[in-house]
Amino acid sequence: MTATMKARVHVMLKDGVLDPQGEAVRHALGTLGFSGVEAVRQGKVIELDLAATDKAAAEVEVKAMCEKLLANTVIEKYSIEIA
Amino acid sequence: MTATMKARVHVMLKDGVLDPQGEAVRHALGTLGFSGVEAVRQGKVIELDLAATDKAAAEVEVKAMCEKLLANTVIEKYSIEIA
Repeated sequence: MTATMKARVHVMLKDGVLDPQGEAVRHALGTLGFSGVEAVRQGKVIELDLAATDKAAAEVEVKAMCEKLLANTVIEKYSIEIA
Repeated sequence: MTATMKARVHVMLKDGVLDPQGEAVRHALGTLGFSGVEAVRQGKVIELDLAATDKAAAEVEVKAMCEKLLANTVIEKYSIEIA
């Protein structure tokens, strides 16, 4: 039996890339009276349950998933947490 | 001058709620040859830059933002990190 390992991937637009979704949220928050919001960036979080026992190997596999599917590395950056 | 505080909000579907987007990602990963993926849940991450100095007050304000706009609390749960 293999243990289950949890991985959490954050995918955000790169810093120079315009984020209209985040900007829309910022504007909506202003409309609702939240005046102290200076900037908003919105991204995705993907939680994976992996059948794996080795943390380093799991991280390598998740990195490959990010490069191939989860992130568009032209405009997006990603970070991986294995728990 | 007020300092800037960063807040990160995670919005995920509640555990009992079907997540077709996560399921689509799981299926696509399987198609790509990643066989060890048992479950995938996909959610949103929202990063806010706040003009605030008090961490506790910022957390209260972000919680209000989640309840009013960022999360649909009928089907979604959220968590807040203030940095």
